[in-house]
Amino acid sequence: MKKFIFPVLVFFTTVLFSQTPLINDSKSEEVVKKIVSTSLENWTSYKWLGELCKIGPRLSGSDNSVKAIKWAKAKMESMELDSVWLQPCKVPHWIRGEERALLISDKLNLYKELKITALGGSVGTEGEKLIAQVIEVRNFDELKKYGDKIKDKFVFYNVPFADTLINTFAAYGRGVRYRVYGAIEAAKYGAAGVIVRSVTSKYDSIPHTGVMLYADSLRKIPGVAISQQDADFLSDIIHLDNSLQVGLKLGCKNLPESTSYNIIGEIRGSEHPEEIILVGAHHDSWDVGQGAHDDGAGVVHSLGVLSLFKKLNIKPKRTIRCVLFANEENGSRGAKAYAEFVQNSNGKHIAAIESDRGGFTPRGFHVTTDSLTLKKLQEWSPLLSSALIDWIRPGGSGADVSKLKNVKALFGFVPDGQRYFDLHHSAHDTFDKVHPRELELGTAAIASLVYLIAEKGL
Amino acid sequence: MKKFIFPVLVFFTTVLFSQTPLINDSKSEEVVKKIVSTSLENWTSYKWLGELCKIGPRLSGSDNSVKAIKWAKAKMESMELDSVWLQPCKVPHWIRGEERALLISDKLNLYKELKITALGGSVGTEGEKLIAQVIEVRNFDELKKYGDKIKDKFVFYNVPFADTLINTFAAYGRGVRYRVYGAIEAAKYGAAGVIVRSVTSKYDSIPHTGVMLYADSLRKIPGVAISQQDADFLSDIIHLDNSLQVGLKLGCKNLPESTSYNIIGEIRGSEHPEEIILVGAHHDSWDVGQGAHDDGAGVVHSLGVLSLFKKLNIKPKRTIRCVLFANEENGSRGAKAYAEFVQNSNGKHIAAIESDRGGFTPRGFHVTTDSLTLKKLQEWSPLLSSALIDWIRPGGSGADVSKLKNVKALFGFVPDGQRYFDLHHSAHDTFDKVHPRELELGTAAIASLVYLIAEKGL
Repeated sequence: MKKFIFPVLVFFTTVLFSQTPLINDSKSEEVVKKIVSTSLENWTSYKWLGELCKIGPRLSGSDNSVKAIKWAKAKMESMELDSVWLQPCKVPHWIRGEERALLISDKLNLYKELKITALGGSVGTEGEKLIAQVIEVRNFDELKKYGDKIKDKFVFYNVPFADTLINTFAAYGRGVRYRVYGAIEAAKYGAAGVIVRSVTSKYDSIPHTGVMLYADSLRKIPGVAISQQDADFLSDIIHLDNSLQVGLKLGCKNLPESTSYNIIGEIRGSEHPEEIILVGAHHDSWDVGQGAHDDGAGVVHSLGVLSLFKKLNIKPKRTIRCVLFANEENGSRGAKAYAEFVQNSNGKHIAAIESDRGGFTPRGFHVTTDSLTLKKLQEWSPLLSSALIDWIRPGGSGADVSKLKNVKALFGFVPDGQRYFDLHHSAHDTFDKVHPRELELGTAAIASLVYLIAEKGL
Repeated sequence: MKKFIFPVLVFFTTVLFSQTPLINDSKSEEVVKKIVSTSLENWTSYKWLGELCKIGPRLSGSDNSVKAIKWAKAKMESMELDSVWLQPCKVPHWIRGEERALLISDKLNLYKELKITALGGSVGTEGEKLIAQVIEVRNFDELKKYGDKIKDKFVFYNVPFADTLINTFAAYGRGVRYRVYGAIEAAKYGAAGVIVRSVTSKYDSIPHTGVMLYADSLRKIPGVAISQQDADFLSDIIHLDNSLQVGLKLGCKNLPESTSYNIIGEIRGSEHPEEIILVGAHHDSWDVGQGAHDDGAGVVHSLGVLSLFKKLNIKPKRTIRCVLFANEENGSRGAKAYAEFVQNSNGKHIAAIESDRGGFTPRGFHVTTDSLTLKKLQEWSPLLSSALIDWIRPGGSGADVSKLKNVKALFGFVPDGQRYFDLHHSAHDTFDKVHPRELELGTAAIASLVYLIAEKGL
């Protein structure tokens, strides 16, 4: 019998050791542990994310977006915060409509439907079918070389995801420029439209959308994304038939701007109410999938922080303000409206923390701050190790909070990033892709950082 | 147009910052980066895991296990290592057979099939249907209080997973004792059998198996696990009808021991061939699912380390030996055979690294070593940050390598652990639950540590 005991006991020995914080602050350690266990016990963020995802995707201007704003406001009101309000801003109202693309190769007698997604903000084809030849390029330099040959053709940006980079956000950064600026560059040479290989780490048949831009001085041409599989297929066929055409029908259009809202709720600080710690995320999402990780996770992280302070009856010394920003995906109008409001108001933001990298297991925080504050934060960081925060490092914060000026420290929550761009901006980004423990630990990690700042100041 | 640019640029700013290692070793930094990018480019471990999982589960003594051993040996031979050999050991040969359980409540007129899995090593019911009342307990103290009332009844250990612990291995450690020792304790009071709530973080209808033990001096009674949902259901019904019975038919039995093998392959060191760095995992798995994370991941991590050294043409100064251990799940006979072999041979193991926590994103390494070596390792650890290793901390290594004596440092690879016990020992543990990037980064992290030790010694 004895011979069987070892495999089991090994599990216990791995648990007995734990890291000793560099600074001794047993009260904070206890609070962090309590925050973690409460999150894992109640799954509040996870349940709320289920409710939010059930509404559906929440693109600015959509009916769903209005429902989501009402839902979030009601959630804040249910927590009996010290104040809850809506802050209006104008937002674009882009709708998708019908979208179809057909690969046409008369030479090969091949006619195949391509699964496309219009890029956010794209013009449509006004009821017509736009048929044109396709020129494949791998970068903007190749585009330039083609020059005028591009006229009246589709430019196909076939740029594979930089899979060999360990940092998926860096890989995304490399590829996304073709989606964002591709139509502008192609329009300079009179292109008919652009087809972009989806900027995703997932190799499958699902296309990923995202914002595209136009230049006022150039013609606005339609932009669509195709999946990685279809991109390889299209490329293969172009090599067999360089007179291949694509027929495109896009019903998308921009409607007049509508009004959306930042949703704001706060717990006033007991000792320094004028010092504000912001936790935030964007409540809009692309109109495919459910915006579960992008950025439903951030929404329920931020709401969950307030909920934890209430549930644990922690009275923060400084004010904790949750801001759910409108319209991050295609305009950042919410972030701009909030930044303007802050410039004209009295409250002093000492810290702002954004969660917009999904609901995965915590790893650390990026922070933009001065070197003294960074040193202080890094001394605290061992207190956060029980919330799986292994580091606080210099780095960017997020698209919304980075608009704020004169904040002592801007933070970006950094969870594990290996799966994020599998889902991002696609039909894959649904609630079933969210793991309850991973999501909850994000809430706990952010709440723990907020607690330390609320107690100690910056 | 300008107003749209910010959201995109934010992604770039988060990428520009990176951590500076405490020690300056630009060659090692370069090699680690090359190891990472090569892993992510080739997906060798992922492809190999697909092949291994296709064989099916690999319980000791099974035909599949023989196939898996042949597969792994062929894989090593294909790499043109300096030597490849099989090391025999005797292993238990337990087979599952038919398994059925029926909940019988005459009082409620309720008859419901329970989905069960026999615990590994359990005796069967010898063709008979074993029908008995059920007594529910939450711990061994409650069992003792029932005492002789337990005679001829099923003991139902209804111990929920410790969900509020952030460390899932600690949570598992708390619950697993009822699965392992439950039958011994219940047999002391003459129980007919034991029914165990599955030790898993996943709340659903799938039961999780795992080893159970018997005492030679006590009667061997059958042991089965039921899912978390069925455990709650059974508990609810017991509260309505405490004369409720369960009927159990189990076809499992122990066949005569058979011969299995450790599979061993090595790249001889160029400067200190007598100093061995072991990378290892166990090749057996439970007979449900595919053993994808437990421990197919560890198998392809270990094989993948050899493959990376070969592919990158790195000639290690010290010997790298990959050992794929037999029979970790129900006897650790492979680990014992290898430990004995080492004691009687000349090679000096300076380090042994085990991967048996699944194929998730790397976080760190646990190490069992002296304080001076720990200090040295922690000075190196920033060199591993490009492989997502954020720390090296004191902790247990793993069930197989911990059998080795006089090794300077025993390591356990520690990936993210939040999903592991959702899958562990169940039908959920299949290839589709493995993320290619997460798996590959495990290989890269272990290969990077091996590289540093091979270069610098310990």
